[in-house]
Amino acid sequence: MKEFNDLLDNYTEGKTLPQEFYTNENIFSEEMNRIYFQKFNWLMVDHVTRIPNPGDYFLFNVEKESIIVIRGRDQEVRAFYNVCTHRGSRVCLEDEGSKKLLVCPYHAWSYDTEGNLKAARYMPDDFDPKQSGLRPCYIKIYEGLIFLNLTQDQPINFDDFIQPLKPMLDIHKTSKSKIALRKKYPTAANFKLVLENFSECYHCVPQHPELCSIHEKDWVYTMGGGVGTAPKKETDEYLKKIEPWVEDCKKRGLPTETYLETNEFREKGFSRYADRTPIGNGHLSQTRDGTPASTLMGTFKEFDGGLTQTAFNQFSICYFTNDFGIMFSFKPQSISETEVELIWLVDQNAKENIDYNVDDISYIWHTTTLADTRIIENNHKGLMSRSFEPGVLSKTETGITYFYNWYFNCMNISR
Amino acid sequence: MKEFNDLLDNYTEGKTLPQEFYTNENIFSEEMNRIYFQKFNWLMVDHVTRIPNPGDYFLFNVEKESIIVIRGRDQEVRAFYNVCTHRGSRVCLEDEGSKKLLVCPYHAWSYDTEGNLKAARYMPDDFDPKQSGLRPCYIKIYEGLIFLNLTQDQPINFDDFIQPLKPMLDIHKTSKSKIALRKKYPTAANFKLVLENFSECYHCVPQHPELCSIHEKDWVYTMGGGVGTAPKKETDEYLKKIEPWVEDCKKRGLPTETYLETNEFREKGFSRYADRTPIGNGHLSQTRDGTPASTLMGTFKEFDGGLTQTAFNQFSICYFTNDFGIMFSFKPQSISETEVELIWLVDQNAKENIDYNVDDISYIWHTTTLADTRIIENNHKGLMSRSFEPGVLSKTETGITYFYNWYFNCMNISR
Amino acid sequence: MKEFNDLLDNYTEGKTLPQEFYTNENIFSEEMNRIYFQKFNWLMVDHVTRIPNPGDYFLFNVEKESIIVIRGRDQEVRAFYNVCTHRGSRVCLEDEGSKKLLVCPYHAWSYDTEGNLKAARYMPDDFDPKQSGLRPCYIKIYEGLIFLNLTQDQPINFDDFIQPLKPMLDIHKTSKSKIALRKKYPTAANFKLVLENFSECYHCVPQHPELCSIHEKDWVYTMGGGVGTAPKKETDEYLKKIEPWVEDCKKRGLPTETYLETNEFREKGFSRYADRTPIGNGHLSQTRDGTPASTLMGTFKEFDGGLTQTAFNQFSICYFTNDFGIMFSFKPQSISETEVELIWLVDQNAKENIDYNVDDISYIWHTTTLADTRIIENNHKGLMSRSFEPGVLSKTETGITYFYNWYFNCMNISR
Ligand code: FES
Ligand code: FES
Ligand code: FES
Repeated sequence: MKEFNDLLDNYTEGKTLPQEFYTNENIFSEEMNRIYFQKFNWLMVDHVTRIPNPGDYFLFNVEKESIIVIRGRDQEVRAFYNVCTHRGSRVCLEDEGSKKLLVCPYHAWSYDTEGNLKAARYMPDDFDPKQSGLRPCYIKIYEGLIFLNLTQDQPINFDDFIQPLKPMLDIHKTSKSKIALRKKYPTAANFKLVLENFSECYHCVPQHPELCSIHEKDWVYTMGGGVGTAPKKETDEYLKKIEPWVEDCKKRGLPTETYLETNEFREKGFSRYADRTPIGNGHLSQTRDGTPASTLMGTFKEFDGGLTQTAFNQFSICYFTNDFGIMFSFKPQSISETEVELIWLVDQNAKENIDYNVDDISYIWHTTTLADTRIIENNHKGLMSRSFEPGVLSKTETGITYFYNWYFNCMNISR
Repeated sequence: MKEFNDLLDNYTEGKTLPQEFYTNENIFSEEMNRIYFQKFNWLMVDHVTRIPNPGDYFLFNVEKESIIVIRGRDQEVRAFYNVCTHRGSRVCLEDEGSKKLLVCPYHAWSYDTEGNLKAARYMPDDFDPKQSGLRPCYIKIYEGLIFLNLTQDQPINFDDFIQPLKPMLDIHKTSKSKIALRKKYPTAANFKLVLENFSECYHCVPQHPELCSIHEKDWVYTMGGGVGTAPKKETDEYLKKIEPWVEDCKKRGLPTETYLETNEFREKGFSRYADRTPIGNGHLSQTRDGTPASTLMGTFKEFDGGLTQTAFNQFSICYFTNDFGIMFSFKPQSISETEVELIWLVDQNAKENIDYNVDDISYIWHTTTLADTRIIENNHKGLMSRSFEPGVLSKTETGITYFYNWYFNCMNISR
Repeated sequence: MKEFNDLLDNYTEGKTLPQEFYTNENIFSEEMNRIYFQKFNWLMVDHVTRIPNPGDYFLFNVEKESIIVIRGRDQEVRAFYNVCTHRGSRVCLEDEGSKKLLVCPYHAWSYDTEGNLKAARYMPDDFDPKQSGLRPCYIKIYEGLIFLNLTQDQPINFDDFIQPLKPMLDIHKTSKSKIALRKKYPTAANFKLVLENFSECYHCVPQHPELCSIHEKDWVYTMGGGVGTAPKKETDEYLKKIEPWVEDCKKRGLPTETYLETNEFREKGFSRYADRTPIGNGHLSQTRDGTPASTLMGTFKEFDGGLTQTAFNQFSICYFTNDFGIMFSFKPQSISETEVELIWLVDQNAKENIDYNVDDISYIWHTTTLADTRIIENNHKGLMSRSFEPGVLSKTETGITYFYNWYFNCMNISR
């Protein structure tokens, strides 16, 4: 696309993007087409325990789309576009609920929980209800996590997608966990600024004292933005220092191998990541004082103070300590609005206010995300200025450059 | 217009319109130019009893336009664009009021109630105040109903326009009625979705139990969207069934002939309609329990339980029972906002809280319109989805296809 | 620019501008580029007493720009774009305050009060902090008044700019004054309508009784929009009448020569103005009853009832009586939003509630500006109508035509 390549004349590797990437409506529209609604973009959106019983459903709303995720009478979870196949009304109006039949609030076309059109009055004789079921949205459940793919085309094979992330994910047994809390953070900023913010921990020391007081200082510097985002020397030192912990993990049969996206898949639009490191400072969990906030979750028999980071892509990320998990979801709403949603998971048998309470498990990341919202909004405002020029990135922001390269590739921009 | 014709490649008769008709700002702008502000579009906007005395005025506001409708000292009602001919300020700021002189709130140019510029200080010597009266807006009063035509060109002859609707309208003597109540329903949806909603009664059974409990079931099915919008067989059966009632009307000298727009006038952009049918179920009026809510209105000597529907065009419609009337006005404000206004009329001699009360006369259509507002907004939201595809219309929604054909014709789109 | 010249086909001198000048987003964007952010546009934005001590700062926000005006440790006042040179965050978030170090709220890059980057952690070895100071904004202080120039290019020489305005300005010794009050008036209208409103006093008699009761009637007519904006005959009569007052001023060594922009500088985009006239009616100040509201300010030894008007350009104007001054600032925010800000100045030694109180000094212009806000908004709404046609200007609105000519010249439109 010529326009984009022209814009790149102002881009220099090691600096931030030129302003127009954040202000041009055509670019935003293309980003949605070429990235968010693309076949490679399997989005982790929620956890199956949100809809335990047949007929239970919730809506996943993003940009102008609304998706119904519903458990069928056969216990299978399916997804449908929340668009009546008659004249296009939204079918479900509440964010969540439970229904035997999805009855359109306009002319009462009625769909069963499997999306089949069961009733439509007065239709022409040649009308085939089988052709007018709710339009399915691609969905996969993996270990209790619900993934959607909003392509209008064919999605990339889910098994290929999830395969390299399995080792790290499986030990946390998300299939045996449940939702403890959910919070939404509307953010008045372009989604790329939200993703950039999550791609680096350069801002962590000054802005996230809560997070930094839990993690070891050198973890924040070398690992906060992911492996390979800090200079080699410090990274090697850190990795050497945690070797005993890693060895111990191995002994206990835990996965220790970091996954970085391969070139082959990066070219297809993928941007996966997984690693596991110790929180450090002798802390066992990401809590106010580093002590556990819930019962052990997953395959763990004891606390080892590890933190697992699993990025399915730039929009869907999970963090796990030994006792809880956090699902992060970044949802573009318009060129200047993004919704960030966090869902906290605990072991399915943990009892609220006995084994855990929501304030304890959410303290670190609720505080951190609230601060990030403010930070990102100020970033958005500032770079609107005529005077804005892309600035030089620090040694610990290579995650940003990694993000840009992924982005250019998805947008099919050749540099 | 090439763009529109291209869009029609995605249109199939018997289905809804493609999405872009509801989302493209250029299309909205052309719709305003080619339809709403066109010479054939005589809009019924209000009733003369709103402005009984010389100097009384109200504003009709639609899209970016504001029209002053004012009674002159000579008792004639005139209409003017609410735009000062000096530097363009709004002249009247209140929705309604009474004035001897319309004094511009900027430099105090003063217009009499006939629109003549009476005072403008310090003007150049060659300035001719006669050339700077308020710019008139085309207006006609028919039987107390106020019609405006907002074309910047010459409107189509009003007498030609009103002629075929006279028989049905005249029996209700709107010139001998008065306004009982007015309500506005702001609707966050494209105006075409509002008009489509009013073109069919397929949604009535599920969504308007109040309306349906008053009318006979077969009336709702065959007549709710107007004559000829249901299958011939059921329509014929219904018409046969009401024959005795129709005969009785004839005997009493009442008009019984349905008016459907002729091809000749449809090609000019007209879309008129008139018919008269019994409410049914032994009900005498469109009220909560079917009993009268006011004294007889118009030429009636007794209640015959008839309902007259008179559509001046897609934007202006009147309903009449024996005891009251309702004026419906659909006003596009932007591509995604439409104001619906209802005005209830009763006999000029009916006394509030003695002969009628506003809750009784407004119950059915206030309830129905409130529900429609919600329905239409959900329709608008739903069809924004990338997954939206035009759906198959039912046998009782041919009014929608009729509406589309009128629309294509006005937009000068050849299919 | 072809588009503009086409629009001018609908413009006639002596009339208002065609509608599209107020509604076309491209035109607004070009206006910002060609006028507001141009090198000739030295904007008076505030008074130095707002930031008396080292580290004191305030923000000047306009359109998408935010400028930090800050007093350095060396007492010098500087201006910087409020955009971090790292990744573009706003650096200062509060409208005003006091700081030793400007620490970016994102990654804590820290700038001293002179704009130098003092701390940036973990930067590449070849990173030169000297290249990454806050980007300066052109600033000049003249007699305590702060001027900014937001061009991205080189501004026109300030001394050349201020020179012709010095005589009138200097007698008021703004360097020896202080801020008494500040008020902002958000106005939902295009900025040109705000400037037009300030270019004529035709509306003063009907809309500003407070202002008109203070000034002599013939002053309002001939001088309200500036010298030369009323017919020659009346202007000459007025000038003759005030001759004794002018002579007296001369005797006391006061400047009496009106400055009108020269052709040479008008072609460069300048639009300066200065004059001094008696308030009239025996009044000594622009107050509710014409009596002084504060102690003498500037070089005055006694009240002479004069009013000095100094226009630096269309966006920045000062008024002075013997006892106080008012700084007017007109700030375009978007095509349909403008912020008007007024700052009242009094002598630096005047004591609040003893020598002056804010209600007295602000009464006339607060009341007048509030009325203007309403007036201008109604003007904006009215001229949106399809029926709007440019109207004939009065003999006392030649300031409007002067404004248009300046505007066409800046926009490089040839008529
Ligand atoms: S739009 Fe859903 S039933 Fe008609
Ligand atoms: S705009 Fe109405 S009098 Fe000037
Ligand atoms: S954006 Fe200011 S320090 Fe990074």
